[in-house]
Order: sequence, then structure tokens, then C-alpha cells
Amino acid sequence: MLDPQLSAWRERSDAALAGALPALDIEPKTLHAAMRHAVLLGGKRMRPLLVHASGVLFDADPLVLDAPAVAIELIHAYSLVHDDLPAMDDDALRRGQPTVHVAFDDATAILAGDALQSLAFEVLAAAPVDAAIRVELLRILATAAGASGMCGGQALDLGATGNGGALTLAELEHLHRLKTGALIRAAVRMGALCGGADDDELASLDVYADALGLAFQVRDDILDVEGDSATLGKTAGKDVAQDKATFPALLGMQASRERLAELTQAMRGALAPFGARAEALRALGRLAVERDR
Amino acid sequence: MLDPQLSAWRERSDAALAGALPALDIEPKTLHAAMRHAVLLGGKRMRPLLVHASGVLFDADPLVLDAPAVAIELIHAYSLVHDDLPAMDDDALRRGQPTVHVAFDDATAILAGDALQSLAFEVLAAAPVDAAIRVELLRILATAAGASGMCGGQALDLGATGNGGALTLAELEHLHRLKTGALIRAAVRMGALCGGADDDELASLDVYADALGLAFQVRDDILDVEGDSATLGKTAGKDVAQDKATFPALLGMQASRERLAELTQAMRGALAPFGARAEALRALGRLAVERDR
Repeated sequence: MLDPQLSAWRERSDAALAGALPALDIEPKTLHAAMRHAVLLGGKRMRPLLVHASGVLFDADPLVLDAPAVAIELIHAYSLVHDDLPAMDDDALRRGQPTVHVAFDDATAILAGDALQSLAFEVLAAAPVDAAIRVELLRILATAAGASGMCGGQALDLGATGNGGALTLAELEHLHRLKTGALIRAAVRMGALCGGADDDELASLDVYADALGLAFQVRDDILDVEGDSATLGKTAGKDVAQDKATFPALLGMQASRERLAELTQAMRGALAPFGARAEALRALGRLAVERDR
Repeated sequence: MLDPQLSAWRERSDAALAGALPALDIEPKTLHAAMRHAVLLGGKRMRPLLVHASGVLFDADPLVLDAPAVAIELIHAYSLVHDDLPAMDDDALRRGQPTVHVAFDDATAILAGDALQSLAFEVLAAAPVDAAIRVELLRILATAAGASGMCGGQALDLGATGNGGALTLAELEHLHRLKTGALIRAAVRMGALCGGADDDELASLDVYADALGLAFQVRDDILDVEGDSATLGKTAGKDVAQDKATFPALLGMQASRERLAELTQAMRGALAPFGARAEALRALGRLAVERDR
């Protein structure tokens, strides 16, 4: 159950995403439909919520926060579209819906993903805030999305798949720090930056975001083992089937749960200096750790 | 034969691209190798040359122009990588080399394209120029690359392939104004913007760039019919084989050549106000119209 503040931000993000995506009734309609399918049919909106929850710590203007919230979700959504392609994870189900290449076709899915990435930067470039801050937001997002961030992590994952036992724990964590962690850290950092956070504050939030990103992935790996496809909204058991490097495969379930507890402690410590104002970030940490899908 | 100024800009762009791409000796090495393969093995560098040729009209600083020159070539290169995929045009040869998915694999090609797009925006965000201009460059490139530009044109092309006879000339030209024209207009506009061009100057240059983009495509279509694969560095005759909408298919060869002459006239008229300083833009126009690959 989402608390009212998080629910309100989620609704706000959904509306901002719907408004930023190209309309269904203008050409090329199929591309636009595929882009909207990729983004608007469900999703936890974890990254937009992190932007708002981080921004509120520093009284950032919600109108400004909408831009990075939308942009980061567009990047996340495009990565899922490409990740689900037959040439990558070959997944037919996502958020309980047919994946984009299943609902449309592979070529449209590739293009829709590409256009979603462009749109993310277009949205950020139009954020109603000083150009200097916009450039910094653009730099953070581009770096987090690219070869030294999310795409780099995907490439490491590709190299490790079918070879699950060969990674060390440090390598597995590095992979996830790039693959999912880079965007999560970017979300928190962009929100804080919109409110004028200082370097010490950004450093504490990086510790929180780093632990959150890893916790999110450990929980994901546990759910792939324990969950069922109907609840998850995606195909369960794929990691084992593909001999993916996962925390349960490397550590076992018990030690994976212990690692999750450690990461929860790390989040708690990093948020302590912010007191009661960080309640939304704490709630998002609990959601990541306790979610069942 | 390229004139010395264009040759110098091409070498400058090649060096700037090599410097912007991630190194081969850091992880993930396969991703980095695929990105470098996509960008550094040949290519006419038409778009970087347009950035420099447009910027020089207004005495823009070459150090500033390097950023949009690199960024736009990264976008162009990523689009070729994705376009060549089996799910799209399924091309094995590009610039006389194996395409990225042939040299590596489909998944790596998808990721390398994605990471090249991110890198384009990362490079622009770091351009050594006022934040206000950087934001404008970022906005121009993101818009040109996305659903209302290049990706939109690709989607229209996808819809028209296998159905070549069904497009009108106006529809075919609209398709190419998005698919290749948007980036060419962006290249010219970004160069001019770095030198502080005013709205009238930008409008004249838009006319030039629009005609150049179409001329480039008309010539491409003619070469696909007349050229051979060895000279082209890519597979000739693919358009007819795939029943693609092309100018020769729609107009015949004679009328296609006449359209090319009209576009040449349009370029000449648009550049007249700039006098002798526009010689490099004129040379690029001639190259587009007269090239044999």
C-alpha cells in the first residue's frame, strides 16, 4: 500500500508522462502507439518517485521536478523495450502486458525505444529551470544511461548470462551498480540538484541511492526464484533458465536475504542526517525491499 | 576529391570522435569495441562537415563546433547500427565493413546503438560554451533525433516498405525530411547557432539544409539503382528488392535527376546572401549531388 504522498507523486508522474508522449492521432501513429504502450501500461514509477522524494528534501519546485521525473522514466522504459527483444532477453510479458515487440513488431520496438531515449533529453532540455541546472541534469542523465552506466551494465550482464557461476560477488554488484543503480542514483541526484543540495548532501544521498539500487536488484533476483508470473507481471524463473548471474545463484537465498538486510541498514544510516523530511525516501526503500512484484 | 578545408574538418571530426568514444581497454570492452566499430570505420562525415561549414559563416569557435559535430555523427552512426539489424533492413555491409551485428551480435548492436545515442547528449552537455547555447543545441539534436524527426521518418519508411507504390511524392519527401533531413537541418542549425546566427540567417540556412537533405536522398536512391556494392560499400539494389518507396520507383530515373537539379538550384539560391563565405556549404551540396557512393 503506497502512502498518500507517494500515490500523489505517482499520479502526477503518470499525467506528466502521458502529456510528454506524442499523441496517438498524429503520424507516425504506430510509432507513437508503441511508445505509449511502452510507458503508460503500468510500472511502479520508482524512479520518478525518487526524483520527487529527493527534491522535496530541498523544497524543489514540483513543476521543475516533473521534467527529470518524466525523463528518467522514459529512459527506463526504453531500456525495458530493448531488453525484452528476442535478440536480448526475449520476454513476451512485461508489467502484465504483451511486450512492445509482441504487441507491434521487432522493428517498431527498436525504433520506439530509440525515440523514447531522444524524448527523455528533449523533455529535460525544456525543464522550467536555469539553463545551468538543465545542462547538469542532462549531463547526469546521459552519463547514467550510457556506456559507463545502464548500457554498460547491460553489456556486462550479456557477457555474464549463460556463465552465471563465473562472477564474483564484487563483479555482480558492479554489474548492477551500472545496470540498475546508475539510473536510481541519477534520479535521486537530479531531484536533489533541482532543490540546490550541497556536495555533502549529494554524497549522503548517493550512499542511500547506491544501497537502494542494489537492494532493488537483490529483491528482484529473489522474486524471480520465489514469485509467480501472474503476480510479477513478467515471466518468473527466467534467470535460472538462462543461467543468469544472480544473488541467489551466487550466495544462496539465505545470504541474499542477509545482504538485503545490510543494504536496508545502509539506507537508514545515509538518510539519518535528513530527519523526518526523508520519510518518503525511507518509504521507497521499504517498498524496494518488501515488494512482491 | 575533397577540398583542403573540408579534408581538414573531416580529420578534425575523426579525431574528436575517436577521443569522445570510450576506450577499448576498459570494461565493458565488447560494448566499447562495437561502439568504435560503428563510428570509426569510415563514413563521409557529412553532418560534422555541415556543422563546421555552417559555423564558419559566423566565425564560431572550432573548439565549440567539435561538440555538435561529434554529437550529430554519433546519432547518425547509432541510427545506422539499428537500421542494419536483421529486424530492420538486415544489411551485412556498411561503409565497406561488416555491420555491427555481423561483427559482434544483435544484442551488442542494439546496446552499442543505445549507448552511442546517450553519448551524443553527454558530449553536447559538456560543450565549452554558455549553458543557454548548450541547452539549445541539446534541444535541437533531441528533437531532430526523435519521433518528430529521424525515428519518425524511419517509422514512416517501415510503413512504406513492401508497399513502395502507395506513397505520393509529397509523402515520400515528407518521409525523407524526417528520416535524413532532420539531422542535416540540425547540423546546419547547430553550427550557425554556435556562431550566433540571427533568425533570418537561420531561416535561409534551413532552406539550404532542407534541399540538401532531399538531394542527398534522391542521389542515394539513384545510386542504389545505378551503383555497384563494391563502390557503394553497401549492398546495391536493396531498395528494389525490398519494394521500398524511392524517387526512381515513383518518378523514374529521368525525373529523379530533374528533381536533383531543382534542389541544386534551391541550395544555390538559399546560400546567395552569404556570398563567398558559404563556399564550403556549396562544396558539400555538390558532393551530395555528385557523389558515387
